[in-house]
Amino acid sequence: MNYWIVLYILGWVLKFESCFLLLPALTGIIYREHTALAYFAVAALCLICGLLLTRRKPKSTSLYTREGFVSVALSWMVMSIFGALPFVLTGDIPSYVDALFETISGFTTTGASILPEVESLSRAGLFWRSFTHWIGGMGVFVFIMAILPLMGGGTNMNLMKAESPGPSVSRLVPHAKDTAKILYILYFSISLCEIILLCVFGMSLFDSLTTTFGTVGTGGFGIKNDSIAGYSPALQNIVTVFMILSGVNYAAYFYLLSRKIKDVVHMEEIRWYFLLIFASAGVIAANTRSLYPTVRETLRHAFFQVGSIITTTGFATTDFDLWPEMSKCILVVLMFVGACAGSTGGGMKVSRLMILFKAIRKELRLIIHPREVRKIRMDGHPVEHEVMRSANVFLVIYFLVLLLSTLLISVDEYNFTTNFTAVVSALNNIGPGLDLVGPTQNFSIFSAFSKFILMFDMLAGRLELFPMMILFMPTTWKHR
Amino acid sequence: MNYWIVLYILGWVLKFESCFLLLPALTGIIYREHTALAYFAVAALCLICGLLLTRRKPKSTSLYTREGFVSVALSWMVMSIFGALPFVLTGDIPSYVDALFETISGFTTTGASILPEVESLSRAGLFWRSFTHWIGGMGVFVFIMAILPLMGGGTNMNLMKAESPGPSVSRLVPHAKDTAKILYILYFSISLCEIILLCVFGMSLFDSLTTTFGTVGTGGFGIKNDSIAGYSPALQNIVTVFMILSGVNYAAYFYLLSRKIKDVVHMEEIRWYFLLIFASAGVIAANTRSLYPTVRETLRHAFFQVGSIITTTGFATTDFDLWPEMSKCILVVLMFVGACAGSTGGGMKVSRLMILFKAIRKELRLIIHPREVRKIRMDGHPVEHEVMRSANVFLVIYFLVLLLSTLLISVDEYNFTTNFTAVVSALNNIGPGLDLVGPTQNFSIFSAFSKFILMFDMLAGRLELFPMMILFMPTTWKHR
Repeated sequence: MNYWIVLYILGWVLKFESCFLLLPALTGIIYREHTALAYFAVAALCLICGLLLTRRKPKSTSLYTREGFVSVALSWMVMSIFGALPFVLTGDIPSYVDALFETISGFTTTGASILPEVESLSRAGLFWRSFTHWIGGMGVFVFIMAILPLMGGGTNMNLMKAESPGPSVSRLVPHAKDTAKILYILYFSISLCEIILLCVFGMSLFDSLTTTFGTVGTGGFGIKNDSIAGYSPALQNIVTVFMILSGVNYAAYFYLLSRKIKDVVHMEEIRWYFLLIFASAGVIAANTRSLYPTVRETLRHAFFQVGSIITTTGFATTDFDLWPEMSKCILVVLMFVGACAGSTGGGMKVSRLMILFKAIRKELRLIIHPREVRKIRMDGHPVEHEVMRSANVFLVIYFLVLLLSTLLISVDEYNFTTNFTAVVSALNNIGPGLDLVGPTQNFSIFSAFSKFILMFDMLAGRLELFPMMILFMPTTWKHR
Repeated sequence: MNYWIVLYILGWVLKFESCFLLLPALTGIIYREHTALAYFAVAALCLICGLLLTRRKPKSTSLYTREGFVSVALSWMVMSIFGALPFVLTGDIPSYVDALFETISGFTTTGASILPEVESLSRAGLFWRSFTHWIGGMGVFVFIMAILPLMGGGTNMNLMKAESPGPSVSRLVPHAKDTAKILYILYFSISLCEIILLCVFGMSLFDSLTTTFGTVGTGGFGIKNDSIAGYSPALQNIVTVFMILSGVNYAAYFYLLSRKIKDVVHMEEIRWYFLLIFASAGVIAANTRSLYPTVRETLRHAFFQVGSIITTTGFATTDFDLWPEMSKCILVVLMFVGACAGSTGGGMKVSRLMILFKAIRKELRLIIHPREVRKIRMDGHPVEHEVMRSANVFLVIYFLVLLLSTLLISVDEYNFTTNFTAVVSALNNIGPGLDLVGPTQNFSIFSAFSKFILMFDMLAGRLELFPMMILFMPTTWKHR
C-alpha cells in the first residue's frame, strides 16, 4: 500500500471541497445570514489541511487498483467528515452524528434525512445540503479529473473505476481525462436546462437551483417539508422528466450528440429501463386510481414516484406509504433495480441485473444442452468473464450487507418493514423507505449505532460495495 | 426431450405413492375411522395410473440431466396432486386448493399450514400429513433407488442430482444406488432413535411417530394446535436435539460409522453450522431473558426456536412473533441460511453460503493483488469452477424468485412483513413467518392465486430452484 499517494489524493479532494464550500458561503452573504462565516471557516480549514497534505508530490506516483479503491473510499469519508462541520457550527443540525448522516446522505445522493422539517434551516444550509447531491451525483474524482491532470492515465482510470457506477467502466473516448470532461459538460448542460425550465414555469431561482441539484444528482433532498408536493403540476412533471433522464446512461447522450443514433438504439439497458418505468407506472396508476380525483393526477403521481424510486432520487409528491400494498411492493422492487449504469442513479443498475438474468438463462440452457457453448452478450458484444464474475460477487456482497445491516439496526426494536426498507433505501441511495421511514417520516428515530450502520450502507451503495469492503481486508493495509 | 422415460418414471413414483398411502389407511383402520376407505381408494387410483404408465419400458432409456430435472420436478407435482385427494375425500380439508397447498407443504418439508386448528382432523389425516414430511425429507427418488434398480448408473445420478440438496452431490460410495441405501438406513435409524426416546419420556406412540416424521424430515407439521409447546420440557429438548442432528450433512454420520472421525472434523460446514446455532441461541436467550421465568426455560426456548428455524423445520414451543425485534430478525436471517448440504433441511445451505463468502474474499484479494492466482477451497479441496458458477446463479435465481413472489402475493394487500416472510418461509421450506403468518397463525388468509405462488416457491425451494425453473424454458420441451 502506497500511503503517501493516498494522502496526497485526500489533500487534493480537500482543496476542491474548500472551493465547493465557497458557494454556500456566497449564498449566506446574498441572504445576509451570519451562517456565511461558518462556511468560510470550514473552507479555510479544508484548504489548510489540503495544502499540508499536498505540500510534496509523493516519490512514487504509482497508483494501482488497491490504492485507487482505498483513495476513493477514504475521500468520500473525509469529504463527509469535513462537510458536516458547517451544519453543526451554524446550529442547523446541532448533533455532529446527525450532521454527518445528513452529509453522507447528501454526497451519496441518498437523500435520507434526519430532519423532521427543513424549512427552518438557513439558506446557506439548504444550498449546501442540496449541492452535496450535485457533487456526489457525477462523482468528485470525475470532477477533479475533468479539471486538472492529477496523475498519469492509468492512475485516472483506477480512480474512475472505483467511483463510477455500473458493472463496467465505459470509456467514451480513449483518455479518462477527456471522458471526465465530456461527462461533466453533459451533466452541467442537463442541469442548466432544468434550472431554466423550472424558472420559466414559475419557480424561484433558489428553489430551481436546489431542486435541480437534487434531481440531476438523483439525490432527493427537498427544501420544503412536503418535498415537491407543493409545486404546480407542471413543475412536478418537469422534475419527473429530468429525474428519468438523469437515470439514463450518460453514454447515450454522448452518442446522441455524436449523431451515433444507432448506438443508442442498440443499448438494451435503456430499452429495459424505459419499459420498467412505463410498466410500473401503469400498474401503479391502475392500483391507485381511486385515491386521486382525476386520471391525469393519478398518472402524474404514479410517474413521479416511479421515476423518483427507480432513479433512486427519493423526491415525493404524495405519501406513497398510504398507497395499496401492491403499489408499495412495486416501489420496493424498483428500489433494488435502480437506474442505468453510467448514470448518476444508484441501486443494482438495470444492466447488472440484465447480465445476471442472462447468466440464469445460460445456466438453465446448459442443463438442457450440456455441450452448448454460448457467450452472454450485451448490446451485441460478448460480456467479459471478469465483468460476469464481478456482477455475481456484487450480488453476494449486496445480499450479505443487506441482511447483516437489517440485523444490526434491529437492535433499535423498530418493526421489520421499517428496518428492512431503511437499509434497502440507504444501500440503494434512495432516501425514503416505508412505514416509520416513509416519505413523510425521517431517519432521526434511529440510535447513533444504527445511523453509523446506515451511513456505511449509503457509502457502500454509492461506491458499489467493493471500495468500502476492501477497507475491511487486513492485507489492504500491508506495505508492499 | 425423451417424453416416454419421463412418463415411465412418473408411473413408478405413483406406484410407490400407492404403497405410502397404505400406511395412513392402516392408521384409519386401527382408529376405526371411515377415512381409511378414502386412503385405500386413492392408493388404488395411484396404482392403476402407475401401472398404466409403466406398462411398457420405453425404447430409449437414456436419461440426461434435462430429463432428470424435468422428471423430478413433475414427480413432486404429481405426487402432491394425488396426495392431496384423500384430504378432500375425507372432508379433513374440503377445498382442493387448500389440500394441495397442505400436501406440497408436507412433501417439501415446509410445514406451512392453511389449517386454523389441527386437532379436529382424523387420525389418518394427521398421520398422512406428517408422513409426507418423512417421504419428502430424504427424497422420493433416493427411496426408490435404494429399493429397486430402476435404470442404469448414470440415470440414477441424474435423478439424484436434481433431488438432493446442496451445491454439489457428495457420493458416499461409488454407486448412486448404494449411496441411496446408506442414506435411507441412516435416516431410518435416526427416526427410530427419536421414536423410542420420545416414547420412553412419556409421549404416546402416535404422537411420537408423527413428531418424529416432522423432526427428521425437518418438516414442522404438528398434531397439536400449539405445535410442541404442550409437551414436557424433556420432550421439547429431545426434539431440539433431533432437529439439529437432522440438519447435519448425512455424510458426517456415514464417516462416523466408518470410523473416519478425521473426515468429520475436517467438514468446515458442520463447524459453522454449530457455531451459528450456539451464537444465535446465545444472543436470543440474552434478548428474551425477561420474557421467561428462569434462565433454563429461556435457553430451552431459544435453542428450540433456533434449531427449528435454521434446520427449516418450523416447530414452535413459544410464539416468537412476540419476541423483541432483534430476536425476530436473527430468526429471519437464519431462515435464509438453512441447514447443511446433504441434510433433510432446506434454505440456501451453510456450505453454499460459505462458498459464496469465499468468493467475496477471493474477489477482494484480486483487487489488492491483481496477479494472485488462488483457488477457493472447501474442506481442504479446491472447489470446482462449475460448483462455483452454479452457486452464484443459484443466488441470482433465489433473489429473483424472492422479489417476484413477494410482489405477486402483495395483490392480497397484506402488509410487507407478512408477504415477505411468507415467501421467505415458503422458499426456504420453513413453515411459519412473522406477523399474519407467525407461528400461531396460518396461511389460509391468502387468495388461491397467492397460494399457488407459494406452492411454487415451496417446490422451487425443496428442489433447489433449477428443476422448477427449467420447466419455464421453451427449449426444455422440444424434441431432440
